[in-house]
Amino acid sequence: MATSESNSIPLLPEGRPGKYWIGFDLGGTKMLALLLDEEMKVVARRRKKTKGHEGVDDGLKRIESTIEQLLEEAQVRKEQVAGIGIGCPGPVDWRKGIVKEAVNLKWFNVPVGEFLQKKFGCPCAVLNDVDAGVFGEYRFGAGEGAHCLLGIFPGTGIGGGCVYDGQILQGKKLSCMEVGHIRISSSNRVAGLEMSGTLEAEASRLTIAAELAKLAYRGEAKHLMKTAGTDLSNMRSKVIAEAIKAGDDEVEKVVRRAAREIGVAVANMVHLLCPDRIVLGGGLVEAMPKLFEDEVSSTAKKNVFDCYRDEFVVKVAALGDDAGAMGAAAWIAKKCSVIQ
Amino acid sequence: MATSESNSIPLLPEGRPGKYWIGFDLGGTKMLALLLDEEMKVVARRRKKTKGHEGVDDGLKRIESTIEQLLEEAQVRKEQVAGIGIGCPGPVDWRKGIVKEAVNLKWFNVPVGEFLQKKFGCPCAVLNDVDAGVFGEYRFGAGEGAHCLLGIFPGTGIGGGCVYDGQILQGKKLSCMEVGHIRISSSNRVAGLEMSGTLEAEASRLTIAAELAKLAYRGEAKHLMKTAGTDLSNMRSKVIAEAIKAGDDEVEKVVRRAAREIGVAVANMVHLLCPDRIVLGGGLVEAMPKLFEDEVSSTAKKNVFDCYRDEFVVKVAALGDDAGAMGAAAWIAKKCSVIQ
Repeated sequence: MATSESNSIPLLPEGRPGKYWIGFDLGGTKMLALLLDEEMKVVARRRKKTKGHEGVDDGLKRIESTIEQLLEEAQVRKEQVAGIGIGCPGPVDWRKGIVKEAVNLKWFNVPVGEFLQKKFGCPCAVLNDVDAGVFGEYRFGAGEGAHCLLGIFPGTGIGGGCVYDGQILQGKKLSCMEVGHIRISSSNRVAGLEMSGTLEAEASRLTIAAELAKLAYRGEAKHLMKTAGTDLSNMRSKVIAEAIKAGDDEVEKVVRRAAREIGVAVANMVHLLCPDRIVLGGGLVEAMPKLFEDEVSSTAKKNVFDCYRDEFVVKVAALGDDAGAMGAAAWIAKKCSVIQ
Repeated sequence: MATSESNSIPLLPEGRPGKYWIGFDLGGTKMLALLLDEEMKVVARRRKKTKGHEGVDDGLKRIESTIEQLLEEAQVRKEQVAGIGIGCPGPVDWRKGIVKEAVNLKWFNVPVGEFLQKKFGCPCAVLNDVDAGVFGEYRFGAGEGAHCLLGIFPGTGIGGGCVYDGQILQGKKLSCMEVGHIRISSSNRVAGLEMSGTLEAEASRLTIAAELAKLAYRGEAKHLMKTAGTDLSNMRSKVIAEAIKAGDDEVEKVVRRAAREIGVAVANMVHLLCPDRIVLGGGLVEAMPKLFEDEVSSTAKKNVFDCYRDEFVVKVAALGDDAGAMGAAAWIAKKCSVIQ
């Protein structure tokens, strides 16, 4: 018995049928939105520049429009979105869905979760971007099957995350695993009292770039001088890798020293959490996977108690730029108890 | 209808009725066994010297006889013991119940769990002694109600443990949270390359004692010189506390410096795990609770990101020597799913 209500339902479904998850990676320079189906397969993607300098309101609108375009492209309706997971830089209040301090974006206390929940009418999980990436590797990449997975992503800073027994380790309300901020030495390689002696000050790309610019200036890195000069901004991961390949031995020494510092930090983490797997990711590692895997692994093995030595392996991340968005989608799906 | 079998059951129960848990703390110098009833109340206790130098076989027999005497005293039969939890020094293989490296006892790869399981015919959980102590504080002491509890127990070494969402953080098979072995500086206060720069090398009682012996030798610690001389073995926690009370300012400075190093380690741990509570325990802290609580708390607060500053409190442990045995009992009870 047809009613007027039933007439509003089309005979054929509009667009794609089924339920979908959105995974979003909000980076300092780029944002990436992925649409995943119920089997957690990526069915659509959309990438944009972040343009953090345009302010919070414009930033939130860019996130919204990126998701809208993603759905439009895939012919998926808002109502079919079961949940959104979004990885954001810096510490987040995961309970309230607030970005606490995203220094690169100049975002402080921004209620991203509430914004998305209202706009799209579905559950939204806000998590730290590196936590999201490590969870992505745990579910779909180099971390699959680990009991305790530690992820370290050296970049401009050095991010970390840990998945323990299927759960992202998070504080009571704030995200953590800020491995870059562990004080590992009393030296003071980079100016600024707050940073002195931390892993980030010893081994981030910014520190490496500063060392390399010095080498170039002193004429000890001929290939690098040709491609990058003495400007820190030019010392991109690929450029560094190419200089090493072309024979700049001093450049290689600087990168290996940084990798060894990360190895010492991994040894610390083994003594703390005894991860059975460590995944290294980010641009530097992607450009020089073997160098990082070898140097971090051998340094870590040298610096742990005998009994821990055979308990962990160091691997290179497998998902590249998709890790964060895929992990964010998998996390909201887990939180919604659809996929455990 | 009485059968010959039913005749073997006495009309009145022999001894105490009910089920019991045993919590055992195996220390380098002392062992403590506690008997807990179903409500986790301590109903009997037994303490002995460990005598580690007498070898593994004698050591295991001492554990066995201590438990037997505990049961006898309390008039509880073996069959009433629902499970035994035992905290042991050094890393343990918690899956197999093996003590991996208890340096003080000279025990290596000792299958304590299997031994106790066979002798007493009940489940047995082997865990690291500090993990047990931190779990004890979590269930019954200064850590009650915490989401993520970090425990740091400075002693001859510096032990640590973490209870996260009700679970002790352990590796896939080995215990961890060896906070004493985090490399926090590139200095080399104590001889021995392996130790250099670790928290233990910077802040353990052994390091403090060595500094104090130097003070005494140089005539800069008059009260301490009277009570302890220049012998490291005499620098016990109480003796140190009394010297400070009596006015040995230089002694106080040394202890405060060590406490600040622990504060830096706590800041590292806040950046990693964002614990909402940190419990400090062990002899040094018990002898000087206010000094440690104040110095560790203020140093940690100074060394963390702004957003973490108000997220944690530092407290002094509440259970004293009972923490380990009580925690071990609570852990086996949890593992047996009787008490969650």
